[in-house]
Amino acid sequence: MGASRTTTMTIAEVEDFAFRILRDNGLAAHQAGPIARAMAVTEAAGSQSHGLYRLIGYVGSIRSGRVNALAQPQFERIAGSFMRVDGDNGFAPPAHAVGVKALIDAAETNGIAALALTNCYHFSALWHDLDPIVSAGLACWAFTIGQCIVAPHGGTRRLMGTNPIAFGWPREDRRPFVFDFATSSVARGEIELMSRAGKTLPQGWGVDASGQPTLDPEAALAGALLPFGGYKGSALSMMVELLAGPMIGEPTSRQAAAFDNGDGGPPIGGELLIAMSPAVFNTGLAKNWQRQAEGFFADARTQPGIRLPSDRRHAARQRSEADGISVPNTLLDELRKLSLADDLRSVPAMKAGPEAI
Amino acid sequence: MGASRTTTMTIAEVEDFAFRILRDNGLAAHQAGPIARAMAVTEAAGSQSHGLYRLIGYVGSIRSGRVNALAQPQFERIAGSFMRVDGDNGFAPPAHAVGVKALIDAAETNGIAALALTNCYHFSALWHDLDPIVSAGLACWAFTIGQCIVAPHGGTRRLMGTNPIAFGWPREDRRPFVFDFATSSVARGEIELMSRAGKTLPQGWGVDASGQPTLDPEAALAGALLPFGGYKGSALSMMVELLAGPMIGEPTSRQAAAFDNGDGGPPIGGELLIAMSPAVFNTGLAKNWQRQAEGFFADARTQPGIRLPSDRRHAARQRSEADGISVPNTLLDELRKLSLADDLRSVPAMKAGPEAI
Repeated sequence: MGASRTTTMTIAEVEDFAFRILRDNGLAAHQAGPIARAMAVTEAAGSQSHGLYRLIGYVGSIRSGRVNALAQPQFERIAGSFMRVDGDNGFAPPAHAVGVKALIDAAETNGIAALALTNCYHFSALWHDLDPIVSAGLACWAFTIGQCIVAPHGGTRRLMGTNPIAFGWPREDRRPFVFDFATSSVARGEIELMSRAGKTLPQGWGVDASGQPTLDPEAALAGALLPFGGYKGSALSMMVELLAGPMIGEPTSRQAAAFDNGDGGPPIGGELLIAMSPAVFNTGLAKNWQRQAEGFFADARTQPGIRLPSDRRHAARQRSEADGISVPNTLLDELRKLSLADDLRSVPAMKAGPEAI
Repeated sequence: MGASRTTTMTIAEVEDFAFRILRDNGLAAHQAGPIARAMAVTEAAGSQSHGLYRLIGYVGSIRSGRVNALAQPQFERIAGSFMRVDGDNGFAPPAHAVGVKALIDAAETNGIAALALTNCYHFSALWHDLDPIVSAGLACWAFTIGQCIVAPHGGTRRLMGTNPIAFGWPREDRRPFVFDFATSSVARGEIELMSRAGKTLPQGWGVDASGQPTLDPEAALAGALLPFGGYKGSALSMMVELLAGPMIGEPTSRQAAAFDNGDGGPPIGGELLIAMSPAVFNTGLAKNWQRQAEGFFADARTQPGIRLPSDRRHAARQRSEADGISVPNTLLDELRKLSLADDLRSVPAMKAGPEAI
């Protein structure tokens, strides 16, 4: 891209930019901080669909009053290996920040533990939620429900969300093995970007509003996406629906869709995090789990053209640290407008008085 | 199939038949019991690839002396939510039987718990291992490594096993929601059956020994299968490799393959079971998790042609209970030969003296 069409920003500049826009729209600092950080880390890892672009939806759901801009997440220990954070109708990253240390401690003590984030809005990259857990030497999962736009395998209508699964595996002195993918044929954010870029979809990704196969991103967004991998991906999507919904007392994606007011923000919903300690699991054994796993990764590397799930993100992160992040000027202009005084007058959260931080 | 080519057996008769052949080959009764039961339940559910047919491999690995026919699984509590059973180099079902109650208890107390089965041979249907857990009202997973025959997405050589994932969700007064699938394009057992039936493979299922795509089941068995669902299925297969391998101190599927002596039996390896209590997870909430999940299933049923993952198995089970199970006479003849006195003379386990039960 030419210099005239993009602006190069450092990772810290992206974070500051996002933080300021969120704050300008009345989001409490303890909410805006973790969100802006997640956005910058995601943008730096090359995941534009979960980067700065998401500010539009964040701001939309703050301005519509659907999300509590002053939310105070509450932590609760329910059982030896199960904790919960009530997000107070705010965004998920601050709820995650309040509970993740207790999750790590419980997994290190009991071998395995789970943390539910409830009553909140998840709109950032799921893999980022695993970072502190995998950095603590734990294997982990995260499950959350995406917007309800996926038909089951063989179906014609929306039933499930895009329902991503993220998994992390700790590696000594190396960046962790982490994957994070939608159980739909493609993430909703990617389809939106394809639509903005005027691209067509591969076959088998979506159906239109009448349930017929379509290659048009807009038609699929109006109809439904299909799961990846046929009946197996469909079963996994249903699993995520159950785990991040009823399992933790949260709505299914279809139920959550009923609360959508079209402000472009995320659906209400929860997130389930699970952490496991390979060190505890290997108690009394040879404890060579790291060597075994590294042998497996080294084996994989001997096949030409093989990429491990997190390779692309790690490489993008290195480039971003060295050369900065190229952000399209059209996007920056659009985002800057989100802080214009004229628009800010209509921000409900700004009328709520001084923030409780 | 005509009456002359199949024999109709009750579920109990299938179990007795399998038990007798295993015992005739020197397998201890506490090992043969759970295996024969698993085989009958699987055959009754229409999963022929994991039914009586597997007796050939079970007997092969007993006769070659690779599996300990007199194994005594040992249970050990490692941490509050983590337990382990050392299978004593025997088959997995008796190890499972020794540990599953403690897993259920720990999940009910702590919210989530895990059980590792180590030093054993898994050769039965994974979903069957979830039955007692899901029947106790818990959501659950099982992971195990299959024979090393799967190339990673974009690869040309074997790296992973067929690495199945099973998940169960409890339903009040109804048969549970359970899925169980290989993360390979197809289960190895299915390919073997296709080969025996002279069928060709769909495109994208396998590569031959030189890494080229093939439609020939035998060529794929000599080369490698591919994961289901492209890079996503490949990532899931790697996850299973890590969870059922290094995570619990067991070999990866490639390491296990080094112990394979060609006797047709399963590779050595472990199994990781995880159980979670929706009742604990919903403590202090509206506790309507069952209603929410049932609403989701009812929603799914409104789309014509939609099948939930376990529908086919549940229907087959009902038919088997009512009408019995049709077993091909060619298979029965082949299996009966496994008990012939001439062959039994070469059973190593028979020489091991009186059984310790």
